[in-house]
Amino acid sequence: MSVVVQNIERTDKAVIDRLAKCGVATVHEAQGRTGLLASYMRPIYNGASIAASAVTISAPPADNWMVHVAIEQVKEGDILVLAPTSPSEAGYFGDLLATSMQARGGVGLIIDAGVRDIRDLTEMQFPVWSKAVFAEGTVKETLGSVNIPVVCAGALVNPGDVIVADDDGVCVVRRESASEVADKAEARLALEEEKRKRLASGELGLDMYKMRERLADKGLKYV
Amino acid sequence: MSVVVQNIERTDKAVIDRLAKCGVATVHEAQGRTGLLASYMRPIYNGASIAASAVTISAPPADNWMVHVAIEQVKEGDILVLAPTSPSEAGYFGDLLATSMQARGGVGLIIDAGVRDIRDLTEMQFPVWSKAVFAEGTVKETLGSVNIPVVCAGALVNPGDVIVADDDGVCVVRRESASEVADKAEARLALEEEKRKRLASGELGLDMYKMRERLADKGLKYV
Amino acid sequence: MSVVVQNIERTDKAVIDRLAKCGVATVHEAQGRTGLLASYMRPIYNGASIAASAVTISAPPADNWMVHVAIEQVKEGDILVLAPTSPSEAGYFGDLLATSMQARGGVGLIIDAGVRDIRDLTEMQFPVWSKAVFAEGTVKETLGSVNIPVVCAGALVNPGDVIVADDDGVCVVRRESASEVADKAEARLALEEEKRKRLASGELGLDMYKMRERLADKGLKYV
Amino acid sequence: MSVVVQNIERTDKAVIDRLAKCGVATVHEAQGRTGLLASYMRPIYNGASIAASAVTISAPPADNWMVHVAIEQVKEGDILVLAPTSPSEAGYFGDLLATSMQARGGVGLIIDAGVRDIRDLTEMQFPVWSKAVFAEGTVKETLGSVNIPVVCAGALVNPGDVIVADDDGVCVVRRESASEVADKAEARLALEEEKRKRLASGELGLDMYKMRERLADKGLKYV
Amino acid sequence: MSVVVQNIERTDKAVIDRLAKCGVATVHEAQGRTGLLASYMRPIYNGASIAASAVTISAPPADNWMVHVAIEQVKEGDILVLAPTSPSEAGYFGDLLATSMQARGGVGLIIDAGVRDIRDLTEMQFPVWSKAVFAEGTVKETLGSVNIPVVCAGALVNPGDVIVADDDGVCVVRRESASEVADKAEARLALEEEKRKRLASGELGLDMYKMRERLADKGLKYV
Amino acid sequence: MSVVVQNIERTDKAVIDRLAKCGVATVHEAQGRTGLLASYMRPIYNGASIAASAVTISAPPADNWMVHVAIEQVKEGDILVLAPTSPSEAGYFGDLLATSMQARGGVGLIIDAGVRDIRDLTEMQFPVWSKAVFAEGTVKETLGSVNIPVVCAGALVNPGDVIVADDDGVCVVRRESASEVADKAEARLALEEEKRKRLASGELGLDMYKMRERLADKGLKYV
Repeated sequence: MSVVVQNIERTDKAVIDRLAKCGVATVHEAQGRTGLLASYMRPIYNGASIAASAVTISAPPADNWMVHVAIEQVKEGDILVLAPTSPSEAGYFGDLLATSMQARGGVGLIIDAGVRDIRDLTEMQFPVWSKAVFAEGTVKETLGSVNIPVVCAGALVNPGDVIVADDDGVCVVRRESASEVADKAEARLALEEEKRKRLASGELGLDMYKMRERLADKGLKYV
Repeated sequence: MSVVVQNIERTDKAVIDRLAKCGVATVHEAQGRTGLLASYMRPIYNGASIAASAVTISAPPADNWMVHVAIEQVKEGDILVLAPTSPSEAGYFGDLLATSMQARGGVGLIIDAGVRDIRDLTEMQFPVWSKAVFAEGTVKETLGSVNIPVVCAGALVNPGDVIVADDDGVCVVRRESASEVADKAEARLALEEEKRKRLASGELGLDMYKMRERLADKGLKYV
Repeated sequence: MSVVVQNIERTDKAVIDRLAKCGVATVHEAQGRTGLLASYMRPIYNGASIAASAVTISAPPADNWMVHVAIEQVKEGDILVLAPTSPSEAGYFGDLLATSMQARGGVGLIIDAGVRDIRDLTEMQFPVWSKAVFAEGTVKETLGSVNIPVVCAGALVNPGDVIVADDDGVCVVRRESASEVADKAEARLALEEEKRKRLASGELGLDMYKMRERLADKGLKYV
Repeated sequence: MSVVVQNIERTDKAVIDRLAKCGVATVHEAQGRTGLLASYMRPIYNGASIAASAVTISAPPADNWMVHVAIEQVKEGDILVLAPTSPSEAGYFGDLLATSMQARGGVGLIIDAGVRDIRDLTEMQFPVWSKAVFAEGTVKETLGSVNIPVVCAGALVNPGDVIVADDDGVCVVRRESASEVADKAEARLALEEEKRKRLASGELGLDMYKMRERLADKGLKYV
Repeated sequence: MSVVVQNIERTDKAVIDRLAKCGVATVHEAQGRTGLLASYMRPIYNGASIAASAVTISAPPADNWMVHVAIEQVKEGDILVLAPTSPSEAGYFGDLLATSMQARGGVGLIIDAGVRDIRDLTEMQFPVWSKAVFAEGTVKETLGSVNIPVVCAGALVNPGDVIVADDDGVCVVRRESASEVADKAEARLALEEEKRKRLASGELGLDMYKMRERLADKGLKYV
Repeated sequence: MSVVVQNIERTDKAVIDRLAKCGVATVHEAQGRTGLLASYMRPIYNGASIAASAVTISAPPADNWMVHVAIEQVKEGDILVLAPTSPSEAGYFGDLLATSMQARGGVGLIIDAGVRDIRDLTEMQFPVWSKAVFAEGTVKETLGSVNIPVVCAGALVNPGDVIVADDDGVCVVRRESASEVADKAEARLALEEEKRKRLASGELGLDMYKMRERLADKGLKYV
């Protein structure tokens, strides 16, 4: 029942990099308003903006043994995604594990639980999005699994899916549709650029999006 | 039932500026410890400190159509105050709407829901106080109202009321009493300056406020 | 029933300083994973990292009278620890009280309630760990006690216990065991330094901690 | 600043009784989906279903002095609505106050805070909708106001407004529109009765509400 | 993007009935401690204990249009499982929809949002497990999907999976493994019966499970 | 570090029984408004009202090994009080452990975590006050301690302290002061009986407690 899946497929790095440039809000819209993790997943410092391939961890509450197991599976550009099997705020991850991650090319952590050593992680520029900052230590007693599908903060994440994360939160993109989503996200960005110019010049969204007639039809009254 | 009130009265800009200088905590005290929005309303970045005239929005959950309608009503120095009709964390507002707001002289947003594009808003120095940071997209399907009284994060806000907001949170001041509250708030600030000096010199609050006798009367024992 | 205990024992300053250097996560581990306050206790600004001797306050909800009483008991290097007798978010403490604290050598505040004047406190570099930032004013009507044992954010704090606080949160160390905990914490730091080097060089935790055999014994399967 | 408004207008009892029969969900719909208090307001026992005229209380956190003041203002058929000036879970109200309320014809309590003596209140059939059940005692030290407009659990309640409350929660109806809302609510009930029969016979909402065409227009695909 | 999958596979009714008899806690254990929905999913009344085949709904926040669409897909013995696309407490479901469900043989609702008409649903003995009880009305404006995989209260639910629900909460069992899980759950029940007798006779778990040696090995001290 | 304290002192059964009759609210008041556990500690069924001597458990998150250890220490009339070392909702306790408890004369459980098998526990009339109802299973891997002081739901509980629990929640009484608290609680009950009669006859609290003058002195205005 406790397994480590060793050879997972990853998305092409070029596609991942394109998604990183689009950011969470745009990618979320581009894939039909899907994929967001819960709003309580916050970055430990502002300004990080990444996309990466997920190595997933299903771990018992307050037991970080599987993090050690997972790091062996990490390749350049991967991110860990940890979902506890029941709610936990324990600090599964700190500066030593981040050091190990960076040594293997890992670029970050998404954890529906706690993280600690915030100051060190910030200095190392190792970004983490977590439910809590909490120093509570963990044990290494019970198995979990690595690289199985997990539900993390309300979103299904498969190993090899792309994680996009920035100050707005975290979004997951299925590996199979990553390229198509990148196309759509870039198209949105291009459109937004034009809209931004028009709005900056003082044009109203009401006019730009031609909303007035539909608002009147629905019954909006100006008094 | 869905209305846009177009001509609202606003407070004199000079009074608004005086309130801005006093800040949330002082203004709240000056009006008898009233007017605070709930403590979960947090700024998306630290350091912003503003006062502005409220343009209010009552909007359905996860539907930002009325934001577009409201922006047409915004004048120089106004702030949007959005209250959803049932709890929502959706990201009603992002950098495009902020661009539109700034083009019309709008200075910020108070929203009892979510906001997105945090990094862009921070770069634009467009301050937002919100319940959540969340990228979840919204629809434009259901009407709401603009410039009606709303309950936002536990506080009643009328259109044209003054919003004071800084790192401590958000406070609303009734338009009718704004000038009087500014007087009282400035008086408090002057008094505080003197108290600060005495406390900095080592004088105790126990002595400065003459508390010792009343404490003894109530029965406080030193052991 | 309402008492102020005036002469409490404090830990040797040298020991306190050693604990400050170790930080919350290490100290928590060093004393057997005990002593953490709840994860909702967050610093008002990042980067503060202190250890100090606790002056405790048991205060009624939304009544800060006892803070004034407590400040008279503060000595150089002390920190206030306030626990309300029922849940409160009120802003018991602001820049005037911080001025008074600094005048007496007080170095910070731990409060399972609200704090206000965040910008001023940040400029003064007066660190606070709190449950909420909230400007709500308080009264001075009901007695509490100073320097009695309190439960603050889920942890028992006795007067004179050492508080360690940094970006990871807050930890309490019993006065009686502070020296021993400092020894163990420093030993952990030394060990961690070595581990950090090995992990940075690419060695896996799986190997460094010799976990592979035990994982296999428990039944972990690689597929 | 602390006032007791003595002569408030009340809604006609016959109208109140009609609203009671309609219940919270129907009344809320009948007035355009407005007026609900937050979902955390739960009854202390199931089965109570009432409508009553509001006597409002703005009270300091954990201070129930104003409840005593308010009870003098209660007339036959009134309900107390208490909003604390900052969040509180304290137990403002128990069986003695309920005894006093019943002696004066008061029929219940809506409180955005705590209540205690649940078993006695249940035996007395004195219904309460509250944020918390909590035995924490309160003081009588600080004034508040009676019969001023309050925001209770996110809804504005004026003295004399009608409160409708049942197992679904709490809804407020403006005194001025109570009669009109009762008309609309009763009309809804009549309509619902017919719909219920058709649905019970197996007819689908899709057909009864003629939704199929609009769903297809929006793009719904059956696969 | 918005689809209704019409022909889903269901689990054999006999297997579903076996799971119903085992209950949530036993089924959860029998499948390796997996499948639980979050603890905030509570029944609207105690005593209901069911198992049923899931018809899933992905619905926009505060928009219950897809519930009408889903009911057409319901067959005898099915249960609806609704996951909003962003957090919502709105009351998607009440007595009319329950009437329609019962007319088609539907046996309940699992909803990570709100429900209303609690008293009627209780009288109808139509069980609901929900995040909230809330009367807030919903619109019918935006499409969602029916019978696609959803994440509901933190658990992945596929159409046709078996939902087991009782006073302990809600558990999902994959259709593919339902029969095997029923076998294991029944085996657990049989074992528990024997254990219950031994414990009832006064035998200690310490002895029955032979824990004493392992506890001593781990270092437990009796003082 | 992990210990089981075997011979704890208990309070005289007659005193415990007197406290049981007074109930949580009265006992809490009688000991100076202290001793309440947090309001989120709710009974799994209404109507239980007990007092008992505490056998305390400090347990790792989601690990119920120490419950088995603790039950051996239970004597007639004892109650278990379990505090996890970091927040947990896991279901540490169900009907088998309750069977074992009842076999040894144990009368209930206070747990700042989850409980399961609610229906069985209700049928057995084994009362539990918990933070959550949750079926999540636990492991038996990591030691904790039995009969050491613990902080449970915000209150310090020593082994042998008296737990009073009813529909209003949970209160702890120090063993050393239990007899004195029982005296004071009974005196309160007697007084309340008289007050209840006067209030039932229509006398106002304002008059009975002679509040009018003090209210006027504080500045209350009737308008």
